Amino acid sequence: VVLVATRNPLNIGAAARAMSNFGFLHLRVVNPYEVAFRQARSALGGASLLARAEEYGCVADAVADCTLVVGTTGGQRRDLQQALRRLEAGARLIRKQAATGGVALLFGSERYGLSNDDLSHCHWLMRIPTVEGSPSMNLGQAVAVCLYELSRNPKASGRAQKQKPATSGQVERLTASLFQALLASGYVNLSSASLTEEKIRRLVRRLNLPAEDHELWLGMLRQINWKLRTGDSDSPSREKR
Amino acid sequence: VVLVATRNPLNIGAAARAMSNFGFLHLRVVNPYEVAFRQARSALGGASLLARAEEYGCVADAVADCTLVVGTTGGQRRDLQQALRRLEAGARLIRKQAATGGVALLFGSERYGLSNDDLSHCHWLMRIPTVEGSPSMNLGQAVAVCLYELSRNPKASGRAQKQKPATSGQVERLTASLFQALLASGYVNLSSASLTEEKIRRLVRRLNLPAEDHELWLGMLRQINWKLRTGDSDSPSREKR
Repeated sequence: VVLVATRNPLNIGAAARAMSNFGFLHLRVVNPYEVAFRQARSALGGASLLARAEEYGCVADAVADCTLVVGTTGGQRRDLQQALRRLEAGARLIRKQAATGGVALLFGSERYGLSNDDLSHCHWLMRIPTVEGSPSMNLGQAVAVCLYELSRNPKASGRAQKQKPATSGQVERLTASLFQALLASGYVNLSSASLTEEKIRRLVRRLNLPAEDHELWLGMLRQINWKLRTGDSDSPSREKR
Repeated sequence: VVLVATRNPLNIGAAARAMSNFGFLHLRVVNPYEVAFRQARSALGGASLLARAEEYGCVADAVADCTLVVGTTGGQRRDLQQALRRLEAGARLIRKQAATGGVALLFGSERYGLSNDDLSHCHWLMRIPTVEGSPSMNLGQAVAVCLYELSRNPKASGRAQKQKPATSGQVERLTASLFQALLASGYVNLSSASLTEEKIRRLVRRLNLPAEDHELWLGMLRQINWKLRTGDSDSPSREKR
């Protein structure tokens, strides 16, 4: 990440923090406002990364050892001379290139972005797909979004830490207990009971009951059934058989 | 976006700005620090969005009209009671659900995140895939990354604004001119010229010459060829035939 002419120390700190969050190690700053850089260095979050940040006097020096240089822009300027890619597509190319050489990702100053001179060092440009009429992102947020896209895993599973579902046997015990309660309470009557039991079975299965909750639900239903049977407000443990 | 117990006005402002960037309209705040909320309202960026932000006394009220409530967390807590999804996978589910009902995305306070009580209102939880050892993101950056993921388009073209490439005829004219210069300069000699011309042709084609640059390159080579031919430092326009 190369920050060019950044003014606000909070933004340098925020960029460093996002780099730390997403595992990017090398921060370079070109002509930062001296005070901003010093203040950022002393701030919390991504501190060691900031301590190792390298300072350069010009973009050419900052990117000299990189094989790909990508500039970021809101994309609303009409005089852009280079190919402009959306982040999703640009990140794919960057990941490929990063396998064989250093890639520099340039972010301009808060107010003006990258200058035409800065942009002339870039192979191509990239923009975050913001909505029309609101293209200008906060610098720290723009860095975070770009680094997230570069490190995201499109194949991440939908249920990485899935809850273990209840077994069919557990679901069926619950269904039986619920049905008993519905019978006892008069919700279903015996003449049409078989049809309704099928409905209840499907209803319970649509809950996707987690295995660990099975006992809890069963306990609640048992209590309700006991109460329906006895009309007593005491607990089942005090029931005398 | 529901911000719960946010302390820093800059973060409320940053959340509003990211919402504005990615086209999200409804901000709700639950128990913000009064001063923070007032200061954020008066700050620039996403201003109208902040002016319309709704304030609630508890999470239950803030999400009452939503059909899906998703909590965000760094995921480092070991006592999480709900399914925890990575952002990439969670966003897919949220996009689906958002087609049929309101979805609330909860962000906790800067220091403590969402409380267990806040989390109990969530259907499931989501974490941004940060690297091990650095899971805690800046609040404004976390909001930006989540909203970016929700609005990104995986099918975005690799060259949305592709430069028009030069035609084969243009490339061939350039190749011929370059070859002429290499002959005139003695870089290639006539005995092995045919083999070398093929090499040069392949070399030029690997450049991906843009159509609009063709004339410029050709002009430069013509000047060089003229100079090689005449040894004169005057421009070709002054050449007398």
